[in-house]
Amino acid sequence: MSTEILQQSIRDIPDFPKPGIVFKDITPFLRDPVAFGVFIDLLADQYRDADLDAIVAIDARGFLFGGALARALNIGLVPVRKKGKLPSACISEEYELEYGTAIVEMHDDALKSRERVLILDDLLATGGTVAATLKLCRKLGAEPVACAFLIELSFLNGREKLGDIPIFAPIVV
Amino acid sequence: MSTEILQQSIRDIPDFPKPGIVFKDITPFLRDPVAFGVFIDLLADQYRDADLDAIVAIDARGFLFGGALARALNIGLVPVRKKGKLPSACISEEYELEYGTAIVEMHDDALKSRERVLILDDLLATGGTVAATLKLCRKLGAEPVACAFLIELSFLNGREKLGDIPIFAPIVV
Repeated sequence: MSTEILQQSIRDIPDFPKPGIVFKDITPFLRDPVAFGVFIDLLADQYRDADLDAIVAIDARGFLFGGALARALNIGLVPVRKKGKLPSACISEEYELEYGTAIVEMHDDALKSRERVLILDDLLATGGTVAATLKLCRKLGAEPVACAFLIELSFLNGREKLGDIPIFAPIVV
Repeated sequence: MSTEILQQSIRDIPDFPKPGIVFKDITPFLRDPVAFGVFIDLLADQYRDADLDAIVAIDARGFLFGGALARALNIGLVPVRKKGKLPSACISEEYELEYGTAIVEMHDDALKSRERVLILDDLLATGGTVAATLKLCRKLGAEPVACAFLIELSFLNGREKLGDIPIFAPIVV
């Protein structure tokens, strides 16, 4: 039932960002406080007893959920950003794109050793950004407990890049 | 008292993004659930009776607060993004940077006529992005009620670009 509300609030946009790709547009979901609330409540219920220290939210759509979930669980929020956006000393990880590579960064004091974190983004696609984010967390000695998304595009096999960490996504396409 | 908690959680980073600029780093604030909670509660108290229909959050740091506030007020969330990031049909506004111009976009169905919105970002600097966002909202017939920030850099006179709309910012530098 609640998953149906979520599914109905996602809009398919054909040929974005390029011909042949069907983009999952989450803006109708964001605009609907019932759908948004269902997702944040689902996440909070799922991780309330996970003894988390922080939400690690991925630039930029992960930020839209990260603050709401950090508030719901009353824990910290850590942004992972594209290269050059964070102002203090950073650790970084490169990952592969379809053509070329990209780099994500996290402040080098963002997490302490043994802190338990949830990695959060809107969508699991090929998994490159998330896999790089897992590495960033582990470089600082933190312990990623799970990765959560609104949507998993299962046909892109992103899970295979993430090892055996639990993955939560109420919408699987 | 609560404003002091907020101020103490902001870190000055000299010479970012370029020599001579002191960047206000909000990542310690995000990492501290007490400070983050104080700010979201301040915003929620300020706008609970403002009959808002949506929060308009500005890419990307405004997203960190936007979801939390939309959830606290149980209203919708509308992202304003840099050009080329939103997948459906957009309206756009160009604004001036120190060197050159930039463009922000909003989906053309993001807001309806007469909807009351709060514009939200982390920091009011020169005001260019916020002024462009005000124009985007008004193009769709919506009524921006106020603009809210964590920090206002008053020496940059960003207010002057925003007309007579009320501005809320608990930290003024």
